Amino acid sequence: MSDKLGDTPAAEFRKHLHEIADWVADYREQISTLPISPNQKPGSIRAKLPGSAPEQTESFDDILRDFQQIIFPGITHWAHPDFMGYFGATTTNSGILAEILTGALNVNAMTWRTSPAATELETVVLDWLRQWLRLPETFGGVVYDTASIGSMHALAVAREKAASEVRERGLSGREDVPMFRVYASDQAHSSIDKAVIALGLGEQNVVRIASDAEFRMDVAALREAVIADARIGFKPLAVVATVGTTSTASVDPVREIASVCREHEMWLHIDAAYGGGLCVVPEMQWVIDRFELADSVVVNPHKMLFVPFDFSALYVRDIARLRRVFTLVPEYLRGDAAGAEINYMDYGVQLGRRFRALKAWMVWRTFGREGLAARIRDHLRLAQLFTDWVRSDARFELSAPTVMGVVCFRYIGHNDADSDRLNAEIVRTINASGKSYLMQTKLRDRTVIRLGLGNILTTEENVRRAWEIIRATADTV
Amino acid sequence: MSDKLGDTPAAEFRKHLHEIADWVADYREQISTLPISPNQKPGSIRAKLPGSAPEQTESFDDILRDFQQIIFPGITHWAHPDFMGYFGATTTNSGILAEILTGALNVNAMTWRTSPAATELETVVLDWLRQWLRLPETFGGVVYDTASIGSMHALAVAREKAASEVRERGLSGREDVPMFRVYASDQAHSSIDKAVIALGLGEQNVVRIASDAEFRMDVAALREAVIADARIGFKPLAVVATVGTTSTASVDPVREIASVCREHEMWLHIDAAYGGGLCVVPEMQWVIDRFELADSVVVNPHKMLFVPFDFSALYVRDIARLRRVFTLVPEYLRGDAAGAEINYMDYGVQLGRRFRALKAWMVWRTFGREGLAARIRDHLRLAQLFTDWVRSDARFELSAPTVMGVVCFRYIGHNDADSDRLNAEIVRTINASGKSYLMQTKLRDRTVIRLGLGNILTTEENVRRAWEIIRATADTV
Repeated sequence: MSDKLGDTPAAEFRKHLHEIADWVADYREQISTLPISPNQKPGSIRAKLPGSAPEQTESFDDILRDFQQIIFPGITHWAHPDFMGYFGATTTNSGILAEILTGALNVNAMTWRTSPAATELETVVLDWLRQWLRLPETFGGVVYDTASIGSMHALAVAREKAASEVRERGLSGREDVPMFRVYASDQAHSSIDKAVIALGLGEQNVVRIASDAEFRMDVAALREAVIADARIGFKPLAVVATVGTTSTASVDPVREIASVCREHEMWLHIDAAYGGGLCVVPEMQWVIDRFELADSVVVNPHKMLFVPFDFSALYVRDIARLRRVFTLVPEYLRGDAAGAEINYMDYGVQLGRRFRALKAWMVWRTFGREGLAARIRDHLRLAQLFTDWVRSDARFELSAPTVMGVVCFRYIGHNDADSDRLNAEIVRTINASGKSYLMQTKLRDRTVIRLGLGNILTTEENVRRAWEIIRATADTV
Repeated sequence: MSDKLGDTPAAEFRKHLHEIADWVADYREQISTLPISPNQKPGSIRAKLPGSAPEQTESFDDILRDFQQIIFPGITHWAHPDFMGYFGATTTNSGILAEILTGALNVNAMTWRTSPAATELETVVLDWLRQWLRLPETFGGVVYDTASIGSMHALAVAREKAASEVRERGLSGREDVPMFRVYASDQAHSSIDKAVIALGLGEQNVVRIASDAEFRMDVAALREAVIADARIGFKPLAVVATVGTTSTASVDPVREIASVCREHEMWLHIDAAYGGGLCVVPEMQWVIDRFELADSVVVNPHKMLFVPFDFSALYVRDIARLRRVFTLVPEYLRGDAAGAEINYMDYGVQLGRRFRALKAWMVWRTFGREGLAARIRDHLRLAQLFTDWVRSDARFELSAPTVMGVVCFRYIGHNDADSDRLNAEIVRTINASGKSYLMQTKLRDRTVIRLGLGNILTTEENVRRAWEIIRATADTV
């Protein structure tokens, strides 16, 4: 409500802040009692909302009522302890508190001067994470929204390194620019293809390398593909090694892939968006083994390290090279130059940048490295426990080794086609019930059920209930 | 603090939420008393922070104390009523409340199913804004973080339309792909160059067209450049018309540019990141005249429409084409397909997407279209008032017409070089004082002072004080 210019009245705002504070506290306390996801038809929420914006001011009470009655019932509760879709969501109480402060400050971290603390804290938390990842100091970092954007920038640097003056002259109409090829396993994330599309390299130049029985890139197949491509005139540009693939969380053999990259002068990009988070768990350090051999590494603290969405870190061995590809300081920002400072706008397409560092800083301090490790370790334990349950029930089979917080398994039908249908039906039925939330994926062309752990609220009881629901649902489909 | 697994204790969280609520309310109430920006040296904040992450848990009180003592003094207060840098910041009380809810929900709006209400509300607010912009229903929209990313996607669609199978085959090593050229005025935003770099089109293929005396693209010069390029074998790809340029908020002649685009079968992209916000002000509708002739339009509600950062809307006439360039549904998301729904992940590089629609919806309902218009109108009035003051002081001169909430002016020195030095010095001195915050830019190679209005808290008193500080500072440099 505002009957004059300026913002809404201060006293009302304070009252609403406290109302929302209680709403948030109640939400977090009661989240386990909510249906995880709405069982609605597309368009049903939109149908309840006006098709045009209001002409006049509306009261906060009316807006909050509509939020509660129309929007909230249409939310999928990623933070629900029984939500086991995708990679576990990373809402945390301290993350929420940080997001509130970030929203209130609403600064733009494009240059150092536009908010010195935002830039310097970004440098600090990037350095903390770099140390956890055991990357040498030669690696510099930058925070983006998503790993998709991080991988795009990494491959842009690779492109620039492999051909002269791509920044300046582009790719087309040039006889001195070869046809590039980018290699990734058949389990790699779709963001690699999207990055290659955006960069003008051509989707068909993403060469999918077969994975082995444990869904890790087959390095012999990689080497063969690279040699074969080079022989017919392609220029092998980069290999994307995935550490924690989306379907099974498998880990590509980084050391061996790095050798192939060295042999053929290719860029090594590690997509550790999910798996990189294990850097804080001492007994899981094998997962980040040889990261220092990479040219670039992307890790999403919003996937395993309890930082709310969005926060993705890209590290580049020669970060000055990334800067050379993208720096471009317009006149209206030249006055910002202070000399020795970092201006993160220089490291990417996006000029405007949220102050994302604060939430990483608050969450990581709240738990400490040991606290993060203890929680992740427990999710790994639960994943192994669930794996044991699957193994012990003859009606089910494990579809992949359980490496991290992801379990892929399958209800066994009369034949493969029957199994595909049944497993998809199980996931659909369970998700529609609102009582648990799982995903399906395909492995070797067969539909399997995928359980993803990582929610901070998820306990053994939740995982046990999920298993009961899965077994009960399997009986009915 | 957490002595066991799971999240921090609920009772403590509730207490902290209320503490933060009061902190936010106090901050907003007292913001005008704060120094606008810190006068620190690069590295001074970082020097106060531990170089490595803590091993053990730390208390919220300790973290909040460090936030207040170390981080907060290093913040540039974009929402300060005396902050007149860049484009006016758009923090609003209702926007902050919305960001709190968004942070608590922390859903990912990648597919409809990952949170139906997030997707449907995005469709709703995009449609509200489309109506304000008087774009026909044939235009479909998508929300990104920044206009930089929006323009990159728009030009990716242009690239795909102009050459066959760029998505599939890329740009290099193909005789059937010409050298593309993209045209923008010498006042256009650096994001256009960055988009062209990322897309592999080559920075030198951004052709900067001279602007006229009022900093609007010279359409005759555009036509000549296009014809000359086509004659020597370039393929004119797209023209970017800017509506509200960064330095002066000038408006390129969209109707005439559209004619040139039609003549030469070029894509017309309108960068109305700032100026598009005037769509809600009836008497300023000339600014959005002929937007319907564009192939794509980008508008940043986080620039003029009081939506907190980040929220940028891209509209594409044939949005199905954008989808064809970027859609790529991996197996682990196929289960999400519900049939009739929109999955916004299909419209861009980024898979993960914040729930950005909520803040637009809450802010726009709080003020209503009339309330938004009244506030923007007042900023336009203040810009004109300031312009009058500059005109009435013989020591200063106006450097560009005042079209929107931006005023460019210059203190007159003994000669051009002297003036450049003095104006840069005035801006530096004022910004270091923390009492006002302005920018410098260059127009026709001369350094000028740039005042940007748009903060919801800025009143005539603030603008008057800025003018007094500028005049007093000019006396001392």
